[in-house]
Amino acid sequence: MRPNSVKNRFLSGQPITNGWLSIPSSYAAEVVASQGFDAVTVDLQHGMMDFETAMAMLQAISITSATPMVRCTSMDAPQIMRLLDAGAYGIICPSIDTPELARAFVDACRYPPVGKRSFGPARGLLYGGPDYFEHANDHTLALAMIESKQAISELEAILDTPGLDGIYIGPNDLALSMGCKPGSETEGVVGDAIAQILRAARRRNLLCGIFCASAALARQRLDEGFHLVTPGNDANILGSSCKSRIAETLSESETTHQADITGY
Amino acid sequence: MRPNSVKNRFLSGQPITNGWLSIPSSYAAEVVASQGFDAVTVDLQHGMMDFETAMAMLQAISITSATPMVRCTSMDAPQIMRLLDAGAYGIICPSIDTPELARAFVDACRYPPVGKRSFGPARGLLYGGPDYFEHANDHTLALAMIESKQAISELEAILDTPGLDGIYIGPNDLALSMGCKPGSETEGVVGDAIAQILRAARRRNLLCGIFCASAALARQRLDEGFHLVTPGNDANILGSSCKSRIAETLSESETTHQADITGY
Amino acid sequence: MRPNSVKNRFLSGQPITNGWLSIPSSYAAEVVASQGFDAVTVDLQHGMMDFETAMAMLQAISITSATPMVRCTSMDAPQIMRLLDAGAYGIICPSIDTPELARAFVDACRYPPVGKRSFGPARGLLYGGPDYFEHANDHTLALAMIESKQAISELEAILDTPGLDGIYIGPNDLALSMGCKPGSETEGVVGDAIAQILRAARRRNLLCGIFCASAALARQRLDEGFHLVTPGNDANILGSSCKSRIAETLSESETTHQADITGY
Amino acid sequence: MRPNSVKNRFLSGQPITNGWLSIPSSYAAEVVASQGFDAVTVDLQHGMMDFETAMAMLQAISITSATPMVRCTSMDAPQIMRLLDAGAYGIICPSIDTPELARAFVDACRYPPVGKRSFGPARGLLYGGPDYFEHANDHTLALAMIESKQAISELEAILDTPGLDGIYIGPNDLALSMGCKPGSETEGVVGDAIAQILRAARRRNLLCGIFCASAALARQRLDEGFHLVTPGNDANILGSSCKSRIAETLSESETTHQADITGY
Amino acid sequence: MRPNSVKNRFLSGQPITNGWLSIPSSYAAEVVASQGFDAVTVDLQHGMMDFETAMAMLQAISITSATPMVRCTSMDAPQIMRLLDAGAYGIICPSIDTPELARAFVDACRYPPVGKRSFGPARGLLYGGPDYFEHANDHTLALAMIESKQAISELEAILDTPGLDGIYIGPNDLALSMGCKPGSETEGVVGDAIAQILRAARRRNLLCGIFCASAALARQRLDEGFHLVTPGNDANILGSSCKSRIAETLSESETTHQADITGY
Amino acid sequence: MRPNSVKNRFLSGQPITNGWLSIPSSYAAEVVASQGFDAVTVDLQHGMMDFETAMAMLQAISITSATPMVRCTSMDAPQIMRLLDAGAYGIICPSIDTPELARAFVDACRYPPVGKRSFGPARGLLYGGPDYFEHANDHTLALAMIESKQAISELEAILDTPGLDGIYIGPNDLALSMGCKPGSETEGVVGDAIAQILRAARRRNLLCGIFCASAALARQRLDEGFHLVTPGNDANILGSSCKSRIAETLSESETTHQADITGY
Repeated sequence: MRPNSVKNRFLSGQPITNGWLSIPSSYAAEVVASQGFDAVTVDLQHGMMDFETAMAMLQAISITSATPMVRCTSMDAPQIMRLLDAGAYGIICPSIDTPELARAFVDACRYPPVGKRSFGPARGLLYGGPDYFEHANDHTLALAMIESKQAISELEAILDTPGLDGIYIGPNDLALSMGCKPGSETEGVVGDAIAQILRAARRRNLLCGIFCASAALARQRLDEGFHLVTPGNDANILGSSCKSRIAETLSESETTHQADITGY
Repeated sequence: MRPNSVKNRFLSGQPITNGWLSIPSSYAAEVVASQGFDAVTVDLQHGMMDFETAMAMLQAISITSATPMVRCTSMDAPQIMRLLDAGAYGIICPSIDTPELARAFVDACRYPPVGKRSFGPARGLLYGGPDYFEHANDHTLALAMIESKQAISELEAILDTPGLDGIYIGPNDLALSMGCKPGSETEGVVGDAIAQILRAARRRNLLCGIFCASAALARQRLDEGFHLVTPGNDANILGSSCKSRIAETLSESETTHQADITGY
Repeated sequence: MRPNSVKNRFLSGQPITNGWLSIPSSYAAEVVASQGFDAVTVDLQHGMMDFETAMAMLQAISITSATPMVRCTSMDAPQIMRLLDAGAYGIICPSIDTPELARAFVDACRYPPVGKRSFGPARGLLYGGPDYFEHANDHTLALAMIESKQAISELEAILDTPGLDGIYIGPNDLALSMGCKPGSETEGVVGDAIAQILRAARRRNLLCGIFCASAALARQRLDEGFHLVTPGNDANILGSSCKSRIAETLSESETTHQADITGY
Repeated sequence: MRPNSVKNRFLSGQPITNGWLSIPSSYAAEVVASQGFDAVTVDLQHGMMDFETAMAMLQAISITSATPMVRCTSMDAPQIMRLLDAGAYGIICPSIDTPELARAFVDACRYPPVGKRSFGPARGLLYGGPDYFEHANDHTLALAMIESKQAISELEAILDTPGLDGIYIGPNDLALSMGCKPGSETEGVVGDAIAQILRAARRRNLLCGIFCASAALARQRLDEGFHLVTPGNDANILGSSCKSRIAETLSESETTHQADITGY
Repeated sequence: MRPNSVKNRFLSGQPITNGWLSIPSSYAAEVVASQGFDAVTVDLQHGMMDFETAMAMLQAISITSATPMVRCTSMDAPQIMRLLDAGAYGIICPSIDTPELARAFVDACRYPPVGKRSFGPARGLLYGGPDYFEHANDHTLALAMIESKQAISELEAILDTPGLDGIYIGPNDLALSMGCKPGSETEGVVGDAIAQILRAARRRNLLCGIFCASAALARQRLDEGFHLVTPGNDANILGSSCKSRIAETLSESETTHQADITGY
Repeated sequence: MRPNSVKNRFLSGQPITNGWLSIPSSYAAEVVASQGFDAVTVDLQHGMMDFETAMAMLQAISITSATPMVRCTSMDAPQIMRLLDAGAYGIICPSIDTPELARAFVDACRYPPVGKRSFGPARGLLYGGPDYFEHANDHTLALAMIESKQAISELEAILDTPGLDGIYIGPNDLALSMGCKPGSETEGVVGDAIAQILRAARRRNLLCGIFCASAALARQRLDEGFHLVTPGNDANILGSSCKSRIAETLSESETTHQADITGY
C-alpha cells in the first residue's frame, strides 16, 4: 500500500504543512496541491463542495506528492467511510467533544476487528494499491478536532482513545465555546487552552495539528510544537491576494510620471 | 437596462481593474469578484471551464458590483452569442488578426441591423432588465485582442472597424508571434509594439486593456495610458500565494527558540 | 451586514411571497427569483439538488432582491450550518415535532453563546458583508416546520423556544399525520389544526408561513393572517403550465377557418 | 430501431407539439417531457446547457413518449454528429441561409454513402436499438432553420436539398434580418415571408415547424398548416407563470375580510 | 402506477439479476441498464456519487426495462425519502442490525399511516404516474441488509418487521463482523450464516438478495434459493475487463510470425 | 518537463496499449487508467463528455503511469489548444483528410515559432512541470487520424507534414468512406488501405496507432507493426461484460440440483 507521507513525516519529526480547500474544483485543488504542501485537506464542513466533488479533488491531490485528507462535516460514520473509500488518507473530524465520539470516530475509520468500517474500498484500492484492505487501518489517519470547552473538560479521556492518531485544533470554535471572539487564539484563556491541549496530546505522542489564520502564526505554531499546521484556506488566500493586487494596482507611486505618454 | 459600469468608467476616465478567472467554480468567481475589481472576466480560452460553468460564474459576478465579462475561445460567432445570452456585458476575443475578423467579431456582438447576433437573450434579460434588447448593442463591449505580428501589420484597419469598443493586448502571444519569449513584454520590439498599439487605439478613443503578470506591471500600464488592466489570473494568484505561505511557514526565524514549550 | 428583507417585511407587516425551488439549476433559480418574490427557498427535502447546487442557487437568488432561504432535509445541525455558510438568510426545517428539536434547530442557526453554530462563514461573508459574524444571529431566520400531530400536541412548548423566528406549515404532511389525505388542508381537522397553529404562533409574534398548492390558496392564507406564503413550487408550475399550453395549442376553436391556407 | 414518432405523426398528418428546453437540468427536462408533448427539443443555441447536460436531458426525454430533439448552436458538423451520437432523433439547425449550408447540414446528419456522419453511435445504440446504424439515416430528422432574408432569397434551392426532412422557422431572427422587431411575426413583411416559406416547404412535403411565443399563436400556426409548433420555452413559461402567481397571490379580493381570523 | 417488475418477478418465482452502479455517470448507468438486468441499483454507500447524480442515474435506468433501485448510505430516513422522491422503486439499506432499525427503515419507505415518509413525490410522480401516492407503499421495495453478527443474533425479530419486503446480504461486511476476511463467504461460519439467513427469510416469503463477486457465484446463489443476485459492480467489471484486454493484447501467440511485415 | 512515456516507448520499440474513454467520469477514467495501459485517451468526438469533464479525466489519468491523451472532436484549433492547456500529452485528431489540415493540426499543437499555439499553459504547467513551455513542443504528440478515401489519395503529402508525430487509423469511418460497412477492416479494400497507410507511415518512422474492436485484433495489429493499439472503448467493454455476466448468471448448469437447499 502506498505509504502515508504525513504519518511518516510525523514519525520522523518533520514539520507538516497542510493546504485547505473550500473551493469546489478539482483544478483549484491541483493548483494548491502543487505548491509544496505535505498534505492537502478538502474541507466538507465549511467548504462549498459535496462528496462527489470532494472525490474529484482527492483525485487532483493524488497527482501530487501531497497526502490527500478530508475534514468531514461532523462525526457521521457513513460519510467518513465514504470519504475513506474515495481515497482520503486522513480524516479530520469536527467537534470530538466526548470519549464516546472519539471512540465512534476511530471505529468509523478502521476495518473490523479494530473498528466498524464497512468493506468496499473503491478508489482506496486505486490510490492505495491492491493490498489496501490489509494495511488501511495502519495508514489512514484519524485526527479528532478539539474545539470546545466540553472537549477540554474530557480531554484526557478523549486523547486516551485507542487508535486515535492525533488531534486538530479549531481555534475559532474553541474561542466561541469559551465565550471569546474568533481570532482570539493567541492569548488569554483560549491561548492557555490550546497550550494545554498541545501538551496533553504531545505527552501521548499524538500528531498535533492546528488551523492558522496566517503563515506567521503557522510558523509560530510549529515553534510551539505543533506537527501539522494549516496556513489559511484557499478562498481566503485567493480573496486577500486579489484585494492586495487591486490596491497595489491603484496605488499612487512617486515614479508615476505620465508625461511620456501624453503624446498618445 | 442595467448600465455597463466598465463603459461608464472608461467614458469618465477612471481606471478599470479587471479580475481574471480560470478556475471553473462559481464560488471562486464570487470570491474574486467581491474584492473590488471593476470588471471580472471569465476566461474560456485558457481557463478550465465550459459554457455552462461560465454562465454560473457570470451569475456569481452579477451578485457584486463588478461588470461580468468573458474571454471567448476564439472568433466563434455562435459561442460569442451564447455568452452574451448568458449575461456577459463584455467580450474579449482572441486573435483579431485582420479587419475581416474584427468585423465578424463586432457582428457577433450586435443585434441587426448593426450586426448579426441571433435573438434569444435568456439571462441577458434577467441581468440587463426587460429592455435588454433595445439597449444591448450600446451596453455590450466588444474588445478585440491584438496579439500577433499580423494584427499589427493591419492595425489601423482593424481599429477602424465600426462598432469596435476597444482592444485588449495579450502580451505573451504577441511576444511569441514576434519571435520573443513570454514575459518579454516590457522592452524591446514587444514593448515597442505594445506602445504602438496603445497609441493607435487611444487616438481613436478606444478602450485599451492589457493582461499583466503582476500588480506592479498593472500599475505601470495604467500610468502608460491603459484604461483597463488585469493584474494576474486567479490560478496563478492562488498558487503563488500558497507557495509564499508555505515558504513563510517553514522559514527559520531568530525568535524560534521558545523556551516555554520545550517542556512538552 | 446586508439586512434580511423578509424579516423587515415581517416586522413592518407587509406580506411575503416566497418562491420554491426543486429544480437543480442556478439558471432556473434566477428565472424564478427575478419575478418579484420577496423570498425564494431552495428545497433540499423534496427538491432534486445537493448542497453544492443549492449553493449555486443561493448565488443566483442573491443577484436579485429576493431573500435567499433553504429548506433543509431534516433537523441535521451540520447540514444547517453548511447552508448558512453558503449564504442562506433563512432556514425552514422539517418536522420540528418536539421542543428539544426546536431547541437544537435554533442552536444550529446561531453562533455561541446563543447557539452552537460552528465558525467558518464562507459565502455568508460575501453575501452578508464583512461584519457578518457580528450580526448573523440577528439576521438569519430560523423557521420551524409544524407538520405532525405530535408537534401540535407540544405546540406551546415548541413555539416558546427562545430564538425561534417563526413557523412554516407543511399542510400535506400534517394531513397525512392526522390520517387525512394530501390536499385536505382547507377544512376539517387539518384546517382546524392549521388555524390553531397560526393563532398560537401569531400570539407570540412569530413569523407564520405556509406552503400553498395554488395562488388562490396563498391569497386566502394571507387573508387568514399568514405572513409568508409559497404559491406552489417550480416543477409543478412548469409542468402544469406546459400541460395547459399543449391543451390550448391543440384545442379546437370556432375561428379556425383554414380556407386561406388550403392553397399551400 | 425505435421508430421516430415525430416523423410518423408528420407522415400521418397529425399535429406535433414540441417542448423547448433552455434550463440545464435533466429533472426539468423530464418534467416538461412528461406533459404530453410529441417532441421535446434541447436548445443549445439560446439555452444555458453544454453538450454533456444536453445528453442527460436527452436521456430524461427518452424516459417519456416524446421524441428527443436538439437545436444545435450553428451549422457545426462535429457538434451535430455528437448530438446524434447522444441519442437525438432530430436536429434543428440555425441559420441555414444557403443551399451549401443545407447540403452540409444534411451531410452531418447522415452516414455515408448518403452523408458524412462519423461512425460511433454511442447512446444512439442504447436509445435506438442494436440496428441503429442500419436505420439511423431514415429515422433521424434534419430540420433547417429558415430565419434570414438571405435564406428567403435562396429558398427554393435550399428546400430542394436532397435528404432535408423539413424546416423550422425562427420568427424573431427572421424579423430582425428584415429590419423589423422581434414579435412582429404575424403580419406585414415578416408574416408574408413566413407564409411564403410555409407554402414552398409544404409544396415539397417537407415537415414545417415554427417557434411560437404563445399557445394561441401555436394553435393559429397549426391552423395555417404548420406540422410542428413550439408553444414557448421552459424558462419563459416558468418565469411568466411565477409572475402570475405572485400577482394573483397579492391581488385584492372582495372576500378578503374574514372576520373569523381577525381575532389572532 | 407503473408496476414494480422486480416485485412481480419475485412473486412469480422468476430469478432477478441486479446491476450495481458505483460510477457517477448517467451514461454509464444507461449502458449497464441496457444489458438485460431486471434491476439496477445505484450504490450510494460505496459508490462515488451524490444524490443529484443518483437522481440522473435513476432517470437513465428509467429509460430501460430495469427497475431502478438504490442502496442508501445508511439507515438515514431523510436520505431514503429523498431517494424515493427521486424515483427509486426499491431501497437496499445497509446494516439493519436490530428490529428497531428495521422498523425505522420500513417507516422511512412508507407513507402514513403505515410509515412516516414525508409527502413530496417529485420524480416519483413522473416515473410512477399520477396515482403514485395511492400505490407507492405497495410498489416500493424495502430490502434490509443483513451483514453483521449482531443482525444474526436478532435475525428472527428483524425479519418479522411488518412491511419489510426482503433482505439483501452483504457477504464481505458479514465476514468482517464474524472475524473473517472479505471473500470468505462460500464456506465456514460465514457460509453457514448466509444459509441461515436465507432459510429464515425464505420461510417468511421475503425476497432474498445477495451481492456476488462473480457471475459463477451469482448462478450458485440462485441455485441455493436466492431470488435476486448482483454479479459484481460496474467499476470492478470495467477494471477487470480492461486488465484482461491488456493481457490478451500483449500475450505472445505461436502464430506471431512478424516476418511478413518487416518490409514496412 | 515530465517525459512522455508513450513517445519513449515508441522510440524504444515497445508496444503501446491505449485505453479509450467515452464515459464522462473522472472515477471511471481512473479505474481504466489503473489497469496497466500505457496511454489513456479521452474521446471527445464520440464520447459523452465536455471539455471540463475531460480536464477532470485527464487529472484522473495523471494519477497513474498512463500518458493522458485526447481525441478532439475535429480539427478545431482553439479546442486543441485548450486540451493541451488541460494537460493532454497527445492529441488524436479526426479526419485529417488533406495536407492543409495536417499542417493546421500540427500548428495547433506547437508553440511559435514552430506552430501557432496560444500561450497559457494552465494545467500543463502542473502536470508537465515549470519548464513546460520550453519543452512542450517536443513532448506533446500530434497524431492525425487517417480515415477517409480522400486522406488516402493525399496520403504521402499528409504524412510528410513537418512535425507530425504519427497517425491513428479509424477503421470504421475509413470503411464507410470506401463504401464498406463498419467492422470490415480486416480484409478486402479496407484491409488493403490500412496496410498501405501503415507501410507509408512506418517508412517515415511515424508512430502508428489504430482502434481495434477487440483485444485479439489489437494483438494482431501489434503483430502487423502498429505501435499503439486501442483494444475497445470503456462503454463497450462495460456493456458487453455486463451482458456476459447476466448470461452466465442465468445459464443452466448440470450441478444446479442442490438437494440440500430444497428444504428452504
